[in-house]
Amino acid sequence: MSQIIALLTDFGTTDAYVGIMKAVMMRIAPNTQFIDITHQIQPQNVNQAAFALLNSYRYFPSSTIFLCVVDPGVGGTRHPVAVNAGGYTFVAPDNGLLTHTLAEIGQFTAVTLTNSDYQLSPVSNTFHGRDIFAPTAAHLAVGVPLENFGTTITELHQLPKPVLEIEPLQITGQVIYTDHFGNIITSIGELSWSNRDQLIFRPRFSDTTQSLTIYPSQITVEIKDLTLSAIQRTYGETPQNHPLALISSGGFLEIAVNQGNAASRYNITTGVPVTLKIG
Amino acid sequence: MSQIIALLTDFGTTDAYVGIMKAVMMRIAPNTQFIDITHQIQPQNVNQAAFALLNSYRYFPSSTIFLCVVDPGVGGTRHPVAVNAGGYTFVAPDNGLLTHTLAEIGQFTAVTLTNSDYQLSPVSNTFHGRDIFAPTAAHLAVGVPLENFGTTITELHQLPKPVLEIEPLQITGQVIYTDHFGNIITSIGELSWSNRDQLIFRPRFSDTTQSLTIYPSQITVEIKDLTLSAIQRTYGETPQNHPLALISSGGFLEIAVNQGNAASRYNITTGVPVTLKIG
Amino acid sequence: MSQIIALLTDFGTTDAYVGIMKAVMMRIAPNTQFIDITHQIQPQNVNQAAFALLNSYRYFPSSTIFLCVVDPGVGGTRHPVAVNAGGYTFVAPDNGLLTHTLAEIGQFTAVTLTNSDYQLSPVSNTFHGRDIFAPTAAHLAVGVPLENFGTTITELHQLPKPVLEIEPLQITGQVIYTDHFGNIITSIGELSWSNRDQLIFRPRFSDTTQSLTIYPSQITVEIKDLTLSAIQRTYGETPQNHPLALISSGGFLEIAVNQGNAASRYNITTGVPVTLKIG
Repeated sequence: MSQIIALLTDFGTTDAYVGIMKAVMMRIAPNTQFIDITHQIQPQNVNQAAFALLNSYRYFPSSTIFLCVVDPGVGGTRHPVAVNAGGYTFVAPDNGLLTHTLAEIGQFTAVTLTNSDYQLSPVSNTFHGRDIFAPTAAHLAVGVPLENFGTTITELHQLPKPVLEIEPLQITGQVIYTDHFGNIITSIGELSWSNRDQLIFRPRFSDTTQSLTIYPSQITVEIKDLTLSAIQRTYGETPQNHPLALISSGGFLEIAVNQGNAASRYNITTGVPVTLKIG
Repeated sequence: MSQIIALLTDFGTTDAYVGIMKAVMMRIAPNTQFIDITHQIQPQNVNQAAFALLNSYRYFPSSTIFLCVVDPGVGGTRHPVAVNAGGYTFVAPDNGLLTHTLAEIGQFTAVTLTNSDYQLSPVSNTFHGRDIFAPTAAHLAVGVPLENFGTTITELHQLPKPVLEIEPLQITGQVIYTDHFGNIITSIGELSWSNRDQLIFRPRFSDTTQSLTIYPSQITVEIKDLTLSAIQRTYGETPQNHPLALISSGGFLEIAVNQGNAASRYNITTGVPVTLKIG
Repeated sequence: MSQIIALLTDFGTTDAYVGIMKAVMMRIAPNTQFIDITHQIQPQNVNQAAFALLNSYRYFPSSTIFLCVVDPGVGGTRHPVAVNAGGYTFVAPDNGLLTHTLAEIGQFTAVTLTNSDYQLSPVSNTFHGRDIFAPTAAHLAVGVPLENFGTTITELHQLPKPVLEIEPLQITGQVIYTDHFGNIITSIGELSWSNRDQLIFRPRFSDTTQSLTIYPSQITVEIKDLTLSAIQRTYGETPQNHPLALISSGGFLEIAVNQGNAASRYNITTGVPVTLKIG
């Protein structure tokens, strides 16, 4: 069985950069299967990459190696790191990209990639994906232990948490992601249906860990000029081209348009505030 | 030898959705090779997906499993299905996506995916690609028989046939697809060269099954304001940047511009009528 | 261990064309691993493809087969060819796509693909990627020797060299590529740091083979209205959103904007002249 390396970058698919990284890895670890998470993170958008990783990592088989390269500080002072956590290994620049995923997993072991034995030579100043991160992932794939790659570190750079304020009759959050379909994903989660008429809210980006029971028919969602009453179960519960609120596939409050593009219709981008009013 | 799963979706490549489906499948069927047909079907465009599948499925090795997810009705009343036909297996929502392919193959065996043993738990209301279709494809890949997945059904939802009217001196069709190069593919097919000066036309989307012999030099093709005399063999038979009619790689009448983009130049999209006049 | 086939095309990822080529290859060579270099070469842009191949091929494992299809002359008089060089095999139309790569490698053996035993039947006039190039790559992957595919040829079509004029106090080149990040790659290379304050310039696209020592602090780079003094080591040596000159990951003079898009900001495309003034 081959070792899986999952790739998450902002390199796009127009240039040869992703192919070059895979080529470098195939020389070191020929028995590897690559799975592309995405290469279309907006250039240098570490926040977007952090959410894409949070939404996807847990579906991968145990022992998957994640090669995450969104690296505005390439060649500068940020450290390249490799991190073991929850049975997975993550290779990335230490710029916050792993923040949400490691917060969810909890315990981790990390090293900075100081051992040049596991890197290309010379290392360029502009493409550490090729020269440092890819060869590290490949050497991990063939079984080199984490501690061989460099010096242990105990703290990693942290992204700020997204806005999530919980009051008795109101939850305030913000848009954290808009997807290819124009669906708007907010920081208000994790939401799940406990039965037909009842939602459970377990806060993810908050110091509050207490869960709340919410009755979806008593809810109002406000975002920009749009007000939505109730949380629906499926897109089709609303007429075609009408907006609705529902639970995203990742468990967050989502605003969508049935068979339409909510983000472009309402001109809503990452960071826009959203309010969920109860009762 | 690994089992092939071919993927055809409208998920785009910007988000983690395709990677998540592959991750889910790798947990169940580690010895799988994925081939992406495309993930850039226009959102919710079942017709476009149906033609992309029709044009590609026959080139795949026998026993390939096709995971087709263009699913505007996700979470609603349409059924998820798995279908054996022509040595292949297709996993898709029952919304017409398989219409043209199954019409070409003929006989099929189909089940609705009612057995939750082969699905993730819980099943979300917004991402059946992850929760139902991907795990089904993976369980098929490791040899679970079709009948285990659910209840046999004998009829599937049908898309309307594209326009194709055959008269003695005129064939009327419509644009069914425009590709990345701007080449315009019409419903007038299947066309093939029987010798240097003679074409055979075997109608595909018509109740008429009788084939016609056509002399390409006696033909006029009309689409919007554009009139083309004759059907050429290659793009290069026309000067650079000039329009021409020829036979597409899938065997349909194609309108193109040599080294240019016909669809954008003539502003032609799916559905536009096309006429082939004979003599 | 599986055989690697690397793909480089202008087919885009919207249509089924790339998936169809992979399907064709899987029927012939089931134990193949595909690595996509890119499928987003601009339609018919052989020059762009030639640079993408030059920048990537050397990172691939020995014995990799490169399937390169950017083919404006499909169906016309250009020959399809297969070429052994430097331990690699390249399958492509003979239109110059291999020029820079073969110039770097030196010796090669080439055949025109005249043997229809290794092609689909019939061969279409519009999709030789599917009918000729893909089956050829796959038969090479299972060990068919190069000489079986057709007639040996000793000369291949050559692209013109990019502009590179070397004078005592000035090097004149041109933009050869702009990437996904908007970084501007020029023909002035190969550049490398010999120590902290000194660059070595070994001309690539010139009859001059003599190397030059350059002091980066004594340099002025001029491109359109932009003048940059010095060559930096990393993007981060310049404030965010400021332009800089540095060495690209492929060893060429690059003009970039730190965390911005230089190509769109300065409206610079392929062919624009660039001058490096010394002292």
